[in-house]
Amino acid sequence: MNARPILYTCARSRGLRATWAAEEAGVDIDLKILPFPPRYLAPEYLELNPLGTVPMLVDGPEDGGARMTESCAIAHYLASKGGPSELVIAPGEPDYAAYCDFTYHADATITFPQTVYMRFALFEKERGLEEAGHAYAKWFWKRLVKLEQRLEDREFLCADRFTVADICCGFALILAESVGLDEGVPDSLKAYRSRLTGREAYRRAVAREDAGLKALQAGG
Amino acid sequence: MNARPILYTCARSRGLRATWAAEEAGVDIDLKILPFPPRYLAPEYLELNPLGTVPMLVDGPEDGGARMTESCAIAHYLASKGGPSELVIAPGEPDYAAYCDFTYHADATITFPQTVYMRFALFEKERGLEEAGHAYAKWFWKRLVKLEQRLEDREFLCADRFTVADICCGFALILAESVGLDEGVPDSLKAYRSRLTGREAYRRAVAREDAGLKALQAGG
Repeated sequence: MNARPILYTCARSRGLRATWAAEEAGVDIDLKILPFPPRYLAPEYLELNPLGTVPMLVDGPEDGGARMTESCAIAHYLASKGGPSELVIAPGEPDYAAYCDFTYHADATITFPQTVYMRFALFEKERGLEEAGHAYAKWFWKRLVKLEQRLEDREFLCADRFTVADICCGFALILAESVGLDEGVPDSLKAYRSRLTGREAYRRAVAREDAGLKALQAGG
Repeated sequence: MNARPILYTCARSRGLRATWAAEEAGVDIDLKILPFPPRYLAPEYLELNPLGTVPMLVDGPEDGGARMTESCAIAHYLASKGGPSELVIAPGEPDYAAYCDFTYHADATITFPQTVYMRFALFEKERGLEEAGHAYAKWFWKRLVKLEQRLEDREFLCADRFTVADICCGFALILAESVGLDEGVPDSLKAYRSRLTGREAYRRAVAREDAGLKALQAGG
């Protein structure tokens, strides 16, 4: 049995939330970078995760340990694994409600629509369904109003400090830039994103994932 | 100021997770049923929630209280508002990782794709993008494998008891039936759904939402 949590992911996928949270929290993970898309290029991964999605976290014994596939849940879990942490907000603490709300909002409301855009407007263009992708690009931009209002007078989303809520929502903004959806992202959120990506732990996480990808390509 | 949490929602929308959690937990909420879709039929709601989405929970003062828009986060919040509860799993308790994972999985992975289906294959059929909707119906069915495997030898998702994780994921299965996506739902998950919808608190929640809708229609 591996004593460290094992994180299976693809470089710069939404698993970056988990790699980043581990770096912020100082949790030693065993990072396994898979080729993209793993369901075709690493079919043995399906035995471990029948969804075929990344990331997946494996921590502790099969019976009673963690087997997680949701990036925001993994980021929260890794950051709070060692007990109370400044990176998470505990039940009863001020802004606990906002912390919960934004960590769910990050994937369900502001990441998923981008994946619909990516599918129909980028990856599967030949299907002639680009309009469906663009409809979800617009949908994504409109939903940014919640983050925008929240950050009008705040540096971070919750409790005047950097938390996993910033990792979760921040990744959605990082994704927007990398897939060409930045035109509808307000300047205030671009500035927020810069504050996040300037963090040492973020840079270490990206460097670690990129190094893993390079090693994979060199070996493949 | 309203002493009770106020839940704004549309009957049988994903806000049902919140109404249901309140009934299970015995939390007295002020339920405000809005016409669907609220962004056109109740435009004043946009002042409160610029996203225009339902549900929204308002609890406590504007400064420091809860203003939440994610149904799974609201269900968790309402169920744990009164302190430790059998309905939630606390950090450190067995299956805490699974509880987090399934409450996020419910909306990001198994509800959102259904809404893409609903948009292109039901509500906006005239756009000629039905194929995009059907692509996400298939995507949804494939992702059910996680719930299916988890429930192979369990009555409920976590810790051998009914929790908010069942409310969150159960709603996705309830939605599948109501929007005509049941053909790809395995029998074992239909049986799980029946166990959930047979609960007294679920029935009270549905009755309460339906009564609210009826009152709205009678008054409109």
